[in-house]
Amino acid sequence: MDGQYLPISEAKVSVLDWGFLHSDATYDTVHVWNGHFFRLNLHLDRFFRGVERLRMKLPFARSEIELILKNCVALSGHKSAYVEMICTRGTSPTFSRDPRQAENRFIAFAVPFGSVATKEQLERGLHIAISDTVRIPPESIDPSIKNYHWLDLVKGLFDAYEYGAETALIVDINGNVAEGPGFNVFLAKNKQLKTPAHSVLPGITRQTVFDLCAEVGLSAIAADVSRDELKDADEVFITSTAGGIMPVTRIDNTSIANGQVGRVTRQLMDLYWKKHADPAWSTPVLYP
Amino acid sequence: MDGQYLPISEAKVSVLDWGFLHSDATYDTVHVWNGHFFRLNLHLDRFFRGVERLRMKLPFARSEIELILKNCVALSGHKSAYVEMICTRGTSPTFSRDPRQAENRFIAFAVPFGSVATKEQLERGLHIAISDTVRIPPESIDPSIKNYHWLDLVKGLFDAYEYGAETALIVDINGNVAEGPGFNVFLAKNKQLKTPAHSVLPGITRQTVFDLCAEVGLSAIAADVSRDELKDADEVFITSTAGGIMPVTRIDNTSIANGQVGRVTRQLMDLYWKKHADPAWSTPVLYP
Repeated sequence: MDGQYLPISEAKVSVLDWGFLHSDATYDTVHVWNGHFFRLNLHLDRFFRGVERLRMKLPFARSEIELILKNCVALSGHKSAYVEMICTRGTSPTFSRDPRQAENRFIAFAVPFGSVATKEQLERGLHIAISDTVRIPPESIDPSIKNYHWLDLVKGLFDAYEYGAETALIVDINGNVAEGPGFNVFLAKNKQLKTPAHSVLPGITRQTVFDLCAEVGLSAIAADVSRDELKDADEVFITSTAGGIMPVTRIDNTSIANGQVGRVTRQLMDLYWKKHADPAWSTPVLYP
Repeated sequence: MDGQYLPISEAKVSVLDWGFLHSDATYDTVHVWNGHFFRLNLHLDRFFRGVERLRMKLPFARSEIELILKNCVALSGHKSAYVEMICTRGTSPTFSRDPRQAENRFIAFAVPFGSVATKEQLERGLHIAISDTVRIPPESIDPSIKNYHWLDLVKGLFDAYEYGAETALIVDINGNVAEGPGFNVFLAKNKQLKTPAHSVLPGITRQTVFDLCAEVGLSAIAADVSRDELKDADEVFITSTAGGIMPVTRIDNTSIANGQVGRVTRQLMDLYWKKHADPAWSTPVLYP
């Protein structure tokens, strides 16, 4: 923060930062696995696009930010980490309400790697409930700008807990499945993969699934996905930087296929983790 | 914060607080004028409703929060202040992603009173542009829970600046006028007042206009307001705790009526500020 490296317990933002008071911020999260960033360039690309679309200016060049992220991880000592880069609108020196007068702020932090799914859930598959809550539509906020507007997702999560499920999916304005708190969703039906196209974050792990499918000759498309279509799939999985590819074996009170983690899901999970050792997709951290 | 009174420059939230990372928070702002809170009870009512709807728990009772707000203002010494109370989801001691495991946090601060409109703009009326950006719909986030999800409003503001206007209105999902960054809007036509009913914060100043209209025998309703209807009005004004009732004399490139601040607007502005001395609507701060 502000050119300083601090213990995470001391990393704090002003209550007057518009990044807090107006959630006027964009961010990205990349993970480090076995001492290597995974697909760092794709995360940096998306982060820089978001910053530009929000008409903010980073106080550092891309190469400097890459160095800051590496330093954060190296200083933390974490070999597997969840690394977040944030640009907030900041505050205006005159407390002006005009966002053009604010001094934008860059923050980065590294914490131990965390996953949406526990080890047990990864083995047996997650139980998800679909909430009626509508994901904030693109007409309101461009979902390709990764943002902290999560009250709809949090509402969905509470609905899912009430239902007895472990996490949630919420819907788009037309009632089709959109995404969950921090993840995209895929279905496989007759070896064809499909993921919602609208009102979703274009996730990097989602993109990685398309890339892996291309490598192994599976067909994958982005299109509308109805609730019924999802429940009627052969296999369902979710994707997130926080956990990678994670199987889903129950949606509401419907078991997906035979309630076991499917073959396509296992194949993609294996390939996903193998790719972490591929130099083309990974960037080493130099620990002290 | 956490039972301590601090200079505002030291008031900071953890970067790991879900109030920041997921904008998982609700808040309210009340103003102090000439050493008195204005309609404090209505603000506290709304704040407590929002906290409950987000399924958060405040670590203080209502009477304690009222005392904290008074102490903040008294210690700041400001005779006219903008006072914000905030409840954030907080963080989980185990960095869990489950919002039920987070320890909710209360924050309050007092800063000098600020207004959406400058003194000059209050005299001649604001110039507003209507952006095509859609306010986050109630199906996504209940607008009666006052929240920091402002990226749509910030986008509207940038659109308005590009147009050469001073502030913005954005629309609801049907294309009707919704609200602006921190304010509701009213029109007067043939002495009948009207304000958008849907996809808007039920503002306390908006409520105050209804109350003042009842007192002076003006009719006021909440209903759909189209762009054309707004531009064709006799008078237009906006309402906010940050500035009260503020006249609008130009929308896009249309002058409202003759481009002068109208009589109904002036009458309500006068009454609004007079009411600040009414003991029924004000609560004194006891300065040291």
